[in-house]
Amino acid sequence: MKSKAIFYHAGCPVCVSAEQHVAHALDTARYELEVVHLGKQKNRLPEAERAGVQSVPALVLDGNPYHINFGAALKDLK
Amino acid sequence: MKSKAIFYHAGCPVCVSAEQHVAHALDTARYELEVVHLGKQKNRLPEAERAGVQSVPALVLDGNPYHINFGAALKDLK
Repeated sequence: MKSKAIFYHAGCPVCVSAEQHVAHALDTARYELEVVHLGKQKNRLPEAERAGVQSVPALVLDGNPYHINFGAALKDLK
Repeated sequence: MKSKAIFYHAGCPVCVSAEQHVAHALDTARYELEVVHLGKQKNRLPEAERAGVQSVPALVLDGNPYHINFGAALKDLK
Protein backbone atom coordinates (compact mmCIF):
# COMPACT_ATOMS: atom_id res chain seq x y z
CA MET A 1 0.00 0.00 0.00
CA LYS A 2 1.26 3.45 -0.86
CA SER A 3 2.01 6.04 1.80
CA LYS A 4 0.28 9.36 1.62
CA ALA A 5 2.28 12.47 0.76
CA ILE A 6 0.51 15.82 0.89
CA PHE A 7 2.22 18.88 -0.51
CA TYR A 8 0.71 22.11 0.82
CA HIS A 9 1.44 25.34 -1.01
CA ALA A 10 0.06 28.78 -1.80
CA GLY A 11 1.11 29.31 -5.39
CA CYS A 12 4.18 31.38 -4.43
CA PRO A 13 7.45 31.11 -6.42
CA VAL A 14 9.15 29.28 -3.54
CA CYS A 15 6.19 26.87 -3.50
CA VAL A 16 6.30 26.23 -7.24
CA SER A 17 10.01 25.44 -7.11
CA ALA A 18 9.57 23.05 -4.17
CA GLU A 19 6.65 21.34 -5.88
CA GLN A 20 8.51 20.87 -9.15
CA HIS A 21 11.76 19.71 -7.62
CA VAL A 22 10.98 18.03 -4.32
CA ALA A 23 7.34 16.88 -4.40
CA HIS A 24 7.63 15.52 -7.91
CA ALA A 25 10.91 13.79 -7.10
CA LEU A 26 9.14 11.44 -4.71
CA ASP A 27 8.88 7.81 -5.65
CA THR A 28 5.37 7.43 -7.03
CA ALA A 29 5.63 3.66 -6.63
CA ARG A 30 5.71 4.19 -2.84
CA TYR A 31 3.95 7.52 -2.33
CA GLU A 32 0.59 8.81 -3.45
CA LEU A 33 1.04 12.56 -3.84
CA GLU A 34 -1.74 15.06 -3.27
CA VAL A 35 -1.10 18.74 -3.97
CA VAL A 36 -3.20 21.19 -1.94
CA HIS A 37 -3.32 24.94 -2.65
CA LEU A 38 -4.14 26.40 0.77
CA GLY A 39 -4.89 29.81 -0.70
CA LYS A 40 -7.69 28.31 -2.77
CA GLN A 41 -8.65 25.38 -0.53
CA LYS A 42 -8.98 27.16 2.79
CA ASN A 43 -11.12 24.30 4.11
CA ARG A 44 -7.90 22.25 4.24
CA LEU A 45 -6.18 24.71 6.61
CA PRO A 46 -7.33 23.01 9.87
CA GLU A 47 -6.04 19.64 8.66
CA ALA A 48 -2.68 21.18 7.71
CA GLU A 49 -2.43 22.84 11.12
CA ARG A 50 -3.21 19.58 12.88
CA ALA A 51 -0.38 17.92 10.95
CA GLY A 52 1.97 20.58 12.33
CA VAL A 53 2.33 22.68 9.18
CA GLN A 54 3.34 26.25 10.10
CA SER A 55 4.34 27.58 6.69
CA VAL A 56 4.22 26.71 3.03
CA PRO A 57 5.58 25.04 1.07
CA ALA A 58 5.39 21.97 3.27
CA LEU A 59 5.29 18.28 2.65
CA VAL A 60 3.48 15.97 5.05
CA LEU A 61 4.94 12.49 4.79
CA ASP A 62 3.64 9.66 6.94
CA GLY A 63 1.94 12.29 9.09
CA ASN A 64 5.14 14.29 9.75
CA PRO A 65 5.48 17.89 8.55
CA TYR A 66 8.53 18.93 6.55
CA HIS A 67 8.72 22.63 5.79
CA ILE A 68 10.68 23.26 2.62
CA ASN A 69 12.32 26.68 2.52
CA PHE A 70 9.87 29.46 3.33
CA GLY A 71 7.14 30.95 1.19
CA ALA A 72 4.39 32.13 3.54
CA ALA A 73 3.20 31.55 7.08
CA LEU A 74 0.01 29.54 7.47
CA LYS A 75 -1.54 32.28 9.58
CA ASP A 76 -1.20 34.71 6.66
CA LEU A 77 -3.32 32.44 4.45
CA LYS A 78 -6.37 32.63 6.68
CA MET B 1 20.77 9.67 -16.77
CA LYS B 2 19.92 10.14 -13.10
CA SER B 3 19.81 13.57 -11.48
CA LYS B 4 22.00 14.20 -8.48
CA ALA B 5 20.37 14.66 -5.08
CA ILE B 6 22.63 15.59 -2.17
CA PHE B 7 21.25 15.49 1.35
CA TYR B 8 23.33 17.55 3.79
CA HIS B 9 22.89 16.94 7.49
CA ALA B 10 24.66 17.09 10.83
CA GLY B 11 23.30 14.06 12.62
CA CYS B 12 20.69 16.05 14.57
CA PRO B 13 17.24 14.56 15.29
CA VAL B 14 15.60 16.93 12.81
CA CYS B 15 18.16 15.80 10.23
CA VAL B 16 17.58 12.10 10.88
CA SER B 17 13.83 12.50 10.47
CA ALA B 18 14.23 14.42 7.22
CA GLU B 19 16.67 11.87 5.88
CA GLN B 20 14.45 8.92 6.72
CA HIS B 21 11.24 10.46 5.46
CA VAL B 22 12.11 12.91 2.71
CA ALA B 23 15.50 11.94 1.29
CA HIS B 24 14.68 8.25 1.20
CA ALA B 25 11.27 8.96 -0.35
CA LEU B 26 12.94 10.19 -3.54
CA ASP B 27 12.56 8.12 -6.65
CA THR B 28 15.83 6.21 -6.91
CA ALA B 29 15.06 5.45 -10.55
CA ARG B 30 15.45 9.16 -11.30
CA TYR B 31 17.72 10.43 -8.52
CA GLU B 32 21.09 9.32 -7.29
CA LEU B 33 21.16 10.19 -3.60
CA GLU B 34 24.31 11.11 -1.72
CA VAL B 35 24.14 11.71 2.02
CA VAL B 36 26.76 14.10 3.44
CA HIS B 37 27.34 14.61 7.19
CA LEU B 38 28.71 18.16 7.32
CA GLY B 39 29.79 17.76 10.93
CA LYS B 40 32.13 14.92 9.92
CA GLN B 41 32.87 15.97 6.34
CA LYS B 42 33.79 19.61 6.86
CA ASN B 43 35.61 19.63 3.53
CA ARG B 44 32.18 19.56 1.88
CA LEU B 45 31.07 22.81 3.60
CA PRO B 46 32.28 25.16 0.81
CA GLU B 47 30.42 23.15 -1.83
CA ALA B 48 27.22 23.22 0.26
CA GLU B 49 27.57 26.97 0.71
CA ARG B 50 28.07 27.49 -3.01
CA ALA B 51 24.83 25.56 -3.63
CA GLY B 52 23.04 28.03 -1.35
CA VAL B 53 22.67 25.79 1.70
CA GLN B 54 22.28 27.93 4.83
CA SER B 55 21.14 25.31 7.32
CA VAL B 56 20.76 21.58 7.71
CA PRO B 57 18.96 19.39 6.93
CA ALA B 58 18.94 20.46 3.31
CA LEU B 59 18.44 18.69 0.04
CA VAL B 60 20.15 19.96 -3.10
CA LEU B 61 18.20 18.82 -6.12
CA ASP B 62 19.26 19.75 -9.64
CA GLY B 63 21.54 22.35 -8.04
CA ASN B 64 18.75 24.06 -6.07
CA PRO B 65 18.84 24.14 -2.25
CA TYR B 66 15.76 23.03 -0.31
CA HIS B 67 16.03 23.52 3.44
CA ILE B 68 13.86 21.02 5.28
CA ASN B 69 12.71 22.25 8.68
CA PHE B 70 15.62 23.54 10.75
CA GLY B 71 18.29 21.61 12.58
CA ALA B 72 21.41 23.78 12.65
CA ALA B 73 22.86 26.76 10.81
CA LEU B 74 25.74 26.03 8.48
CA LYS B 75 27.89 28.66 10.18
CA ASP B 76 27.59 26.73 13.46
CA LEU B 77 29.13 23.65 11.85
CA LYS B 78 32.40 25.36 10.99
